[in-house]
Amino acid sequence: MADVGGTLAALREQAPLVHSITNLVGMDLSANVLLAAGASPLMAHAPEEVDEVVAAADALVVNIGTLTSEAVDVMAQAAVKAGELGMPWVLDPVGVGATVFRNDAASRLAELEPAVIRANASEVLALAGVAAGRAVRGVDTSVDSLEALDAAGELAARCGTTVAVTGSIDYVTDGRRLFAVANGVPMMARVTAMGCALSGLVAACLAVCADATEATTHALAIYGVAGECAAVDAEGPGSLRWRLLDALDSMDKDTLQRMASIDG
Amino acid sequence: MADVGGTLAALREQAPLVHSITNLVGMDLSANVLLAAGASPLMAHAPEEVDEVVAAADALVVNIGTLTSEAVDVMAQAAVKAGELGMPWVLDPVGVGATVFRNDAASRLAELEPAVIRANASEVLALAGVAAGRAVRGVDTSVDSLEALDAAGELAARCGTTVAVTGSIDYVTDGRRLFAVANGVPMMARVTAMGCALSGLVAACLAVCADATEATTHALAIYGVAGECAAVDAEGPGSLRWRLLDALDSMDKDTLQRMASIDG
Amino acid sequence: MADVGGTLAALREQAPLVHSITNLVGMDLSANVLLAAGASPLMAHAPEEVDEVVAAADALVVNIGTLTSEAVDVMAQAAVKAGELGMPWVLDPVGVGATVFRNDAASRLAELEPAVIRANASEVLALAGVAAGRAVRGVDTSVDSLEALDAAGELAARCGTTVAVTGSIDYVTDGRRLFAVANGVPMMARVTAMGCALSGLVAACLAVCADATEATTHALAIYGVAGECAAVDAEGPGSLRWRLLDALDSMDKDTLQRMASIDG
Repeated sequence: MADVGGTLAALREQAPLVHSITNLVGMDLSANVLLAAGASPLMAHAPEEVDEVVAAADALVVNIGTLTSEAVDVMAQAAVKAGELGMPWVLDPVGVGATVFRNDAASRLAELEPAVIRANASEVLALAGVAAGRAVRGVDTSVDSLEALDAAGELAARCGTTVAVTGSIDYVTDGRRLFAVANGVPMMARVTAMGCALSGLVAACLAVCADATEATTHALAIYGVAGECAAVDAEGPGSLRWRLLDALDSMDKDTLQRMASIDG
Repeated sequence: MADVGGTLAALREQAPLVHSITNLVGMDLSANVLLAAGASPLMAHAPEEVDEVVAAADALVVNIGTLTSEAVDVMAQAAVKAGELGMPWVLDPVGVGATVFRNDAASRLAELEPAVIRANASEVLALAGVAAGRAVRGVDTSVDSLEALDAAGELAARCGTTVAVTGSIDYVTDGRRLFAVANGVPMMARVTAMGCALSGLVAACLAVCADATEATTHALAIYGVAGECAAVDAEGPGSLRWRLLDALDSMDKDTLQRMASIDG
Repeated sequence: MADVGGTLAALREQAPLVHSITNLVGMDLSANVLLAAGASPLMAHAPEEVDEVVAAADALVVNIGTLTSEAVDVMAQAAVKAGELGMPWVLDPVGVGATVFRNDAASRLAELEPAVIRANASEVLALAGVAAGRAVRGVDTSVDSLEALDAAGELAARCGTTVAVTGSIDYVTDGRRLFAVANGVPMMARVTAMGCALSGLVAACLAVCADATEATTHALAIYGVAGECAAVDAEGPGSLRWRLLDALDSMDKDTLQRMASIDG
């Protein structure tokens, strides 16, 4: 596997332009995480300009958090354009399983060949079910990432993609290889849009690292290590948030290599 | 009256799912306040899925800050569904009185039987006027919460709801009972969307405390005490914001009971 | 030239109401910057109420960051109304040059006589080209503010407006006069929406200072000095953001006058 420190260095050197079509809650944090990590965020979602924006970007992330029917159409348009250009893109199927509308949107997007799907365990279980044509209803957020491992492998194989299941331990699989990342702190789950912003960071790493599974694993490790550094002095979720941005900004390669816990 | 510490404990134990259809400025802070207090935020506003989301939630908050005609329709749809399910919901009529469009939206929503209306004094005066068919034009933001007390009582009686008028002292009334909460600090008004986020916290408390007037009073006290704790070390509105989240997260029952200033 | 300390004092005394129709990423920071500086933010974008909101406001800022066709129409509606009322407004042409859709929107708005156009160097070059009917495609973000000086003068003369080109040194020109502001720190560019929020502060200063070029120069100096104060203890972009808000809130006239670096 390539070296996580090399991916961080490449992020900062190449400053990839990451086009995000994401939810309204997470836009601010997503943009700031990308900037702190060295990438350039760009958010645009008008159908009139999405093709041109995709063409100018180095990677794309699509997130269905605060979904509308117009947004699904634009996300699909951007994903198709990315496919035509051979540009990698990330799908974050927020809340899939919760409603029929969300299931339909997520499965429509999953069929457009994302390079990576990044989700929590319950979303991976739901999306694997939806993609396989099983009836899915309701979200069980208590499920652990380990319990979604089989579903992740099934989803990866079906969609020809890399799937990242994030949780207390993160798992990344393309259906053949499997990596486990044991970084991060539980308090990260108490800051809104942390997962959404992570999906953007995965897209940024895809732009600088050709192997999607390695790029994803590296993004999870970088983010988790930043969370651990931030947690040292954080007194709660409010301070964790800005300290995470400071930690991403000041992270040095040696600390990252030393703290990154990647198995597989 | 039930015990404010008990409401905080119930929030953390039950982690109620709060569905927010709120304005674009306040989404981030609203979600983070809910998370820090122990609740689970969920934001969704597509007409295709709103009924299902309401059905899965424990409470709903509707906020007209950055209004569109589509948003009013979705808010009304969610409110009607909540009514059918007997689920309590909160109306935050941001800026009512400022435009005819906003007056129409606020009065339409107020008729759908919110459990609580949470607003500042000028908004309560405006909404009471609008609801009574009086001509309302313009917003006088200099008005003190005490001056809106009669209007709050009138509005509560007319809509069969609890009305919270927030200001330097907050008043909560259902038209018969009256509580005054003297917590919080003036600097909270210098952080955007603080009132919007408070309305979300009111919804969270409604989900764990059956008496709407008590739940609202408790939410105001919890938020105000968190603001006071945050203000101890805050050097301005920037630091007050994240310190408030840390204070909500780390608040202990004894401190809350000791600092809560509830009269009535 | 009027005194920058006087403009800060006037902001706090008059608390101008600034109507912002801005992008989804920058709403939170824009509102908080206005509040911290002493102004009152108001965000509303429904065509049904925009005329009334403009009529109630003291200044308007229009920002095309996350553009849609509906948003362009509302921005134009607000700009026309502001023109009828003689109220100054600011155009922030985010990303002009990147897409045809964005070029069309920016040139349409630029023709509606903004008092000020605030942009970075590549955007000024692009907008000057678009306004002059030249083919513009792509954005060169590496260009320095000094290199856009001629384009700024051309754009100012063509549109009868003041143009501010922000960068490591900011330039402000109405086509005849030229001011240079050498405040701020590079790390400000690593926080999302810092430029968008600055455009809002320019609008606020327009409301309290009749000379648009002086008002703009003052806004840039106030913001840059706040950034310098914030940078003293900031450990990265996360802490810079909230420290900037604290610095704006606590800035005293003497410090501002002493630190402001305005030439021209």
